[in-house]
Amino acid sequence: FESKLPNLGTSIFSQMTALANQFEAINLSQGFPEFDAPELLKKQLNHYVLEGVNQYSPSSGVPRLQQQIAQLAKRKYAAEIDAAQQVTVTSGATEALFVAIQALVREGDEVIVFDPAYDSYQPAIELAGGKSVNIALHAPSYAIDWQTVAAAINSKTRAIIINTPHNPSGKTLKQHDINALKALVIKHDLYLISDEVYEHITFDQQPHLSVLRDNELFARSFVISSFGKTFHSTGWKMGYCIAPAALAVEFRKIHQYVTFSSFTPAQHALADMLEQQGEHVDELSEFYQQKRDVLSKALKDSRFTILPSEGTYFLLLDYSDVSDLNDVEFCQWLVEQAGVAAIPLSVFYQQPSNDKVIRLCFAKNDATLLQAAEILCQL
Amino acid sequence: FESKLPNLGTSIFSQMTALANQFEAINLSQGFPEFDAPELLKKQLNHYVLEGVNQYSPSSGVPRLQQQIAQLAKRKYAAEIDAAQQVTVTSGATEALFVAIQALVREGDEVIVFDPAYDSYQPAIELAGGKSVNIALHAPSYAIDWQTVAAAINSKTRAIIINTPHNPSGKTLKQHDINALKALVIKHDLYLISDEVYEHITFDQQPHLSVLRDNELFARSFVISSFGKTFHSTGWKMGYCIAPAALAVEFRKIHQYVTFSSFTPAQHALADMLEQQGEHVDELSEFYQQKRDVLSKALKDSRFTILPSEGTYFLLLDYSDVSDLNDVEFCQWLVEQAGVAAIPLSVFYQQPSNDKVIRLCFAKNDATLLQAAEILCQL
Ligand SMILES: CSCCC(=O)C(=O)O
Ligand SMILES: CSCCC(=O)C(=O)O
Repeated sequence: FESKLPNLGTSIFSQMTALANQFEAINLSQGFPEFDAPELLKKQLNHYVLEGVNQYSPSSGVPRLQQQIAQLAKRKYAAEIDAAQQVTVTSGATEALFVAIQALVREGDEVIVFDPAYDSYQPAIELAGGKSVNIALHAPSYAIDWQTVAAAINSKTRAIIINTPHNPSGKTLKQHDINALKALVIKHDLYLISDEVYEHITFDQQPHLSVLRDNELFARSFVISSFGKTFHSTGWKMGYCIAPAALAVEFRKIHQYVTFSSFTPAQHALADMLEQQGEHVDELSEFYQQKRDVLSKALKDSRFTILPSEGTYFLLLDYSDVSDLNDVEFCQWLVEQAGVAAIPLSVFYQQPSNDKVIRLCFAKNDATLLQAAEILCQL
Repeated sequence: FESKLPNLGTSIFSQMTALANQFEAINLSQGFPEFDAPELLKKQLNHYVLEGVNQYSPSSGVPRLQQQIAQLAKRKYAAEIDAAQQVTVTSGATEALFVAIQALVREGDEVIVFDPAYDSYQPAIELAGGKSVNIALHAPSYAIDWQTVAAAINSKTRAIIINTPHNPSGKTLKQHDINALKALVIKHDLYLISDEVYEHITFDQQPHLSVLRDNELFARSFVISSFGKTFHSTGWKMGYCIAPAALAVEFRKIHQYVTFSSFTPAQHALADMLEQQGEHVDELSEFYQQKRDVLSKALKDSRFTILPSEGTYFLLLDYSDVSDLNDVEFCQWLVEQAGVAAIPLSVFYQQPSNDKVIRLCFAKNDATLLQAAEILCQL
């Protein structure tokens, strides 16, 4: 059987979580919270299940949830979103990313991707018959040189994928980035996929610069977010895509044949949650900033160099002073010998990267973070 | 924006359910049960949600559920399935179908599809760069002429998609069909996608002839099923794919980037359900056969001709003696003027079909079926 994705194996997140379990290591690799979803959300889910709301939702989502999503976008970004036409609920942001890429990318199209990049972009582009053009960003700044981006654009370029706040680097795009991006997208008639799954996790009082804030840019964009990240419920697989109506139509054509719809009771419960406890969303940045600070402080006297994290629940460490191993070997050693699971940064790059950087997930209880830091401080 | 699927609109099921709601019609169109999921299943789901089992499951599924699926296949079809390697849990059978097609179909490949066909096959094949070769079956027998199939196979043919019990016709494949299919698949080195989402709903004591019963055929197959159909929980979007290990590897590569994983608490609850109340599965055929009979009997004196239903929860009616409208117009009239929503059969065909046939879903309470029948008897 000839594989359509011959170079692809099991996702690094699955691999590292399996290793963490095998070696009983502290799992700071795959990004998922150690704490539970809010009580109200769980209670409401159970309520709808018991009440018998267990059949197909409309393919684009439960209208109440679409409306709450639109209202959140309005409250946070002053965006005027038509809930019925522009919001599509998906089975996780992963599905939304996959569907947006399928809707956009045609045989031979090129898509600009910034490495380090989330691992699902590349296979989704390939399956659509496209080709990713990867622009590598590097530690410590992970800054984008927009002239390099401009030079990478040609007549085959169809879309750019951005991710802010950025997994794995924790970097956020600034207004000058958005301006440069917008100029290129409009000048070259491109489309944008904006992966904003960590939109509610930004630090040090920085606002999240959602593409939803800019009408002109949004007009050519698929904006993707995730309830799993926001409500500590990654196993519920609930996400969504906001797009202008003309793009949403194409998105929905494909979504209806990829999953058709998502877990109905969770959609109602999420609508209740957003309606009744909207403050959860607003408190998330502070909640995670405290965790970032706990971990950073506990690592201050280690031999790791801590890179800045402006958002997400990830922190990068440069381990040049700790080990000469490459990052994959180092993470293997770390999980097996030291009892801490982390993600090697090189797996997020298409071209080999020699940076000596690993990613830690700090969506964990403080005790867990301190325990991991104690181990890392001994290295 | 140039659409990748220019000929595609909103799925007929979404359209008809929306019309049914708009005109307050009895909705026998989209296939979903009017009754609720079993109490135990709902109770267990709530248990796991409250217990805090709300983060990512492994991408291939919760091991306990994979094992229960393998055991069911063993009990029912004497199939020896390796749960860990061959069973992948998906976000509904729709996702499983989409992923299997993406794993198999390459640019230029042909896939043989029998019309009337479930509406997701075609766009999934197109998105993969393939071409469907549609073989039309017709009322009343919907029999497959395997010589026609043999004649449709050429060097580009990659796969055949079968669906038994068959939506919309209610037809089941017989042993001679499986034999003919197997001979063709092996002779021409093809793959098989076997959509068996109604596997537990077969009537008149006929056993379901799963591809899982035949080792040689299974060796080239993706076998797909659905918990939504089996456990009256279509809104939970839980399904799975069983495939030989080499094919499962390719399936999983794609699945991990389409949805990554499915709703974790539901996976545990389904494992409990299969473990503790396996009899639900065995009682399903009788449960639905009674409904088929209630509806058929109530329509006996109508001017519709009832076509045989051997499985699924669908019944076809020939309305030649009721109306001269084509089936799309007739269904439009039916939902608006008579207050009953049904699905026109022609939408399941790639080539225009002039059959005057509509599909009714009888996964409804007896009172609902009788009420609909009363209306139909007056036409
Ligand atoms: C779907 S598993 C990956 C979770 C995640 O977003 C990450 O660890 O980066
Ligand atoms: C996913 S909506 C379609 C439901 C169904 O299987 C049908 O009505 O045929």
